[in-house]
Parts: sequence; structure tokens; C-alpha cells
Amino acid sequence: MVDENGVPRPKRTVFFVSDRTGITAETLGHSLLTQFDVDFEQVTLPFVDNQDRARKVVEQVNRLSTVGEQRPVVFSTVVQDDVRELLRTANAAFFDFFDAFISPLEQELGVRSSHTVGQAHGVGDTKEYSARIDAMNFALNHDDGVTTRQYDKADVVIVGVSRTGKTPVSVYLAMQSGIYAANYPLTEDDLINGGVPRILKPYRAKLFGLTIRPERLQSIRAERRPNSRYASLQQCQMEVLRAEAMFAREKIRFVDSTNVSIEEIATTIVHQCGLKRRVY
Amino acid sequence: MVDENGVPRPKRTVFFVSDRTGITAETLGHSLLTQFDVDFEQVTLPFVDNQDRARKVVEQVNRLSTVGEQRPVVFSTVVQDDVRELLRTANAAFFDFFDAFISPLEQELGVRSSHTVGQAHGVGDTKEYSARIDAMNFALNHDDGVTTRQYDKADVVIVGVSRTGKTPVSVYLAMQSGIYAANYPLTEDDLINGGVPRILKPYRAKLFGLTIRPERLQSIRAERRPNSRYASLQQCQMEVLRAEAMFAREKIRFVDSTNVSIEEIATTIVHQCGLKRRVY
Repeated sequence: MVDENGVPRPKRTVFFVSDRTGITAETLGHSLLTQFDVDFEQVTLPFVDNQDRARKVVEQVNRLSTVGEQRPVVFSTVVQDDVRELLRTANAAFFDFFDAFISPLEQELGVRSSHTVGQAHGVGDTKEYSARIDAMNFALNHDDGVTTRQYDKADVVIVGVSRTGKTPVSVYLAMQSGIYAANYPLTEDDLINGGVPRILKPYRAKLFGLTIRPERLQSIRAERRPNSRYASLQQCQMEVLRAEAMFAREKIRFVDSTNVSIEEIATTIVHQCGLKRRVY
Repeated sequence: MVDENGVPRPKRTVFFVSDRTGITAETLGHSLLTQFDVDFEQVTLPFVDNQDRARKVVEQVNRLSTVGEQRPVVFSTVVQDDVRELLRTANAAFFDFFDAFISPLEQELGVRSSHTVGQAHGVGDTKEYSARIDAMNFALNHDDGVTTRQYDKADVVIVGVSRTGKTPVSVYLAMQSGIYAANYPLTEDDLINGGVPRILKPYRAKLFGLTIRPERLQSIRAERRPNSRYASLQQCQMEVLRAEAMFAREKIRFVDSTNVSIEEIATTIVHQCGLKRRVY
């Protein structure tokens, strides 16, 4: 980044301060920062749950604010009042997540908030929590079509040719939503036969397809097996073409993962398949 | 939940409305809701990125507000002004993430925000994005000690006895932070030999231990292999005891995963090992 005189501007430092993991502060702050065409240096400071840690944070922030001509930005999700008051004394632009929302929410709900350290990313409801771990293990045990034994237990079965992103999406669905996602790679035999693979027929209502642009698929595969038939453009084109034809013919919903993130694909699947989340 | 007269109160419905995945709205809203001892019905409405979708959301919210005596709560991260203005007309308590923070942030940064649909959970920086996928593949390829071939590439090697949560933590580190986390299960031989397993010696600086309470370990293992020696309390006690003794003797940092979430363990590892995130 350069300023109006073409002079390079130092990166603006942003701190995400939390009494727990910092995930909420990061998520909050990051989505705000993506709205600005500014280079940021992002620092997460988790477990700031007492006045000593808070004082150290203030020192760290102030050390920076003396160097750069731009004061740092602090996003805080700290709920303990005494800790928050200390943080507020730092020489920085202080954005307080709880001040902004907690009091209006207390008014709306007609109850006081607990003001206790957030359980948002803690174990919290252990039933919810083990649902998540179970879903995670399910995704890993049913990755890449290793077994279809428990497909009846699956919420969704993600199908696509090799390297379309089935595994990250399956794991993400488990992690984020406690959804049981199996994934099955379409083999060359499957693609030549053309129909829904026999083994998947009982679960066809659960199938969701992933596809990708052949050129992108080629480059991904080339990293794994350079100069292989597997990574040839011709092979990738053939596989993608046949996979998409099968999805269309069999009326299997699918998305193109080429320019779409894991989160977006996962959200699309939950949304389009009307899946019920087990975890929030 | 019951009110002051002991009359059961209907669940308060909370909508997370977003023009993209809804992840930011959920994270924001969920950490706020965990501050209240109230039962909520949580509904995520993603991809609300035009006026038509917005009108449907308003209808859906209003339909509810006519039934229950409590109006719904809406958390919105929608950035398009026209869509947001429509949402605001719903008969609900409207908490607008961008109104709360964007304008003060614009003032602080001295630049206008783009007001374009958030890229927070999109592909965004493709370099960052593929780093994440690579890290994910690394975690899965180096799960459960299957291979130590690329341990030199690992940022951290998570060690612990079977079923202490190594895999979910490794995958989470990859997904959330683009960190290369391998994991290695301590075998009975490893535990009897007592020292750092020979194969791990070159990477000892990267080792981080997970432990768990034997009773908890027993119940987790019993679900997998009921009445097995593997799941016996005696076996679990022996393994945990020896593993923790090894961690202590070899000065390997470790955490007890019994009552700690995946996110908290992952954050602790990043924090204590001073790992650099590749992804924000």
C-alpha cells in the first residue's frame, strides 16, 4: 500500500484479543477488515482472562503505537469487565464486541448476561461436542470411498472425481456442523459405465456432486503426479465431462469447486440438501 | 426455560442472515447467545445477496413474530445497503454487525469500505487458500503415524496414546490456520521403552503431547471396542501414566484434552509453540 504521495505506508497492526481462543474476535475482525483495501498485520492474543495478561497486552500494543505513526487497531471479545477496562487504556482504536451488542441484547431478552468467559468455542454442551467428534471420525472413516458400510448413517455422500475437494468439504461439514458426510471418488469404471455407481444406488437421495474446471484439476493433479496420465489435461477433461454428464442425467445436485471456498461449498450443501446442523 | 410464574417459555428464534456463508453471523451471534441463560432456536439464512431473497427472509421472520409473543432476533452481516435496509423492516430485534463497526472503522482507517459482499469466507487470497488445502492434505496424509516421511515439513507433531483427540486437532489446525500438523500415536512398545520414540527423535522440538483422564479414555475406547483389553480401565491408566511420565521426563509440552475443546487445544498449541499462522 502507498499513500497519496506514493510513499509506501507501513502495515496497520490489528490485534484480536480474547479471554478464550480468539476465534470470535478473529472472525469478527477479519470479515470487517476484508471490507478495506488496506494491508494489515494481524496478531491474535488468546487467553487474556486476568488483569496481569491484560497489562501485558496493553504494553505490547503501546510499544507498537509509539513506532508506527498509525495507532494499532484492537478487536476485543473479552467479557470480564475489569479485564476489558484495562485493555481499553491501550493507545489503540478499540473495538469492543461485547459493549456493542451485549447491553442491547440484554434489553431485548429481558435478562442479564452472565458476563462470564465465553463458552462459544469451549466444550460447552458435551452432547453437541461429541456429535462433532463423531461426525469428524465418520468423515475420516468414510473418506475416499474406503467403506460404504455406514452410508445409511450419512447425512450426505459427496461424489466427484479425484481431487475435486471432497475430503476438505466432508471434514469441514463435520467440524462446523456435526454433519455426517461420506465421500466417494468416481473411478474411471464408474465414469465409463455412466450411471450412478451400483454401490451408491441405495443412497442416491443423499448424493451431492463436486466438479471442477479441467485445467484447474490438471494443475492440482500435476502437483501430486507430474507427467502422469492421471494429471493429463485430456484425462481430466474426460473425467469431468463424464462426471458432469452423470450428475445432469441422474439429477444429482452439484457445484463447481474451482473458485469456491470449502466454507461456501459446505454451506451450499447444507442449504440445498436442507441438512439439519447438530452443532452451533 | 420457564418464566417467573413457572410457565414454560417458547424458545426464542434467532436468525443469522448473511449475503455469503453466514459463518461470521453465526460466530458473532453464537458467542453473544452463550452469554444468556435462554433457550434459542437458531436458524442460518445464507446467500441473502439480493432484494428478492431479503423479502423472503422478512416474510419468514414476520411469520414467526406473529405466533410467539416474543419477536425473533436477527443477526445480520449483510453489507449491501439496499438488502440491509429491506431486512431492517422485519418485525424483529435487528442486530447489524456492519452498522456497529464499519463506520467507526472507516473513520479510524481514513478510507471508505468497499461495501461489497464479504470475501471473509470466500477463496480470497488463493495463495492463502491453497496453503490451507495443502495443510489439510498434510494432516490427513500424516494422520495416526502412517508415515513420518515429511515430518521435516511439519510445524508440529502431536503425540499421545490412541483416542486422545490427535486427529481432530491436527485437522482443525490445518483448516483454521494452515498449520502443518502431523500426529503420532504412542504404541505400547513406545510406552514401555519410555523415551521419545526413536523415529520421533529428529523432530523432538516439534513434539506436543495430548493426554486425557483414564476414565474418559476408557469410555471413548469402549464405544469402539467394548470389553477389549484396549478399552479396559487398567490399560488406559497404564498408557496415560506412562505417556505423561514420558512428556514430563522429556520436557515435552502437553495438555489434558478431557474437558477442552478442539479449538482450545489448537489455540493452546499455536500459542505455546509460537506457531505462525498461514491463514487468517
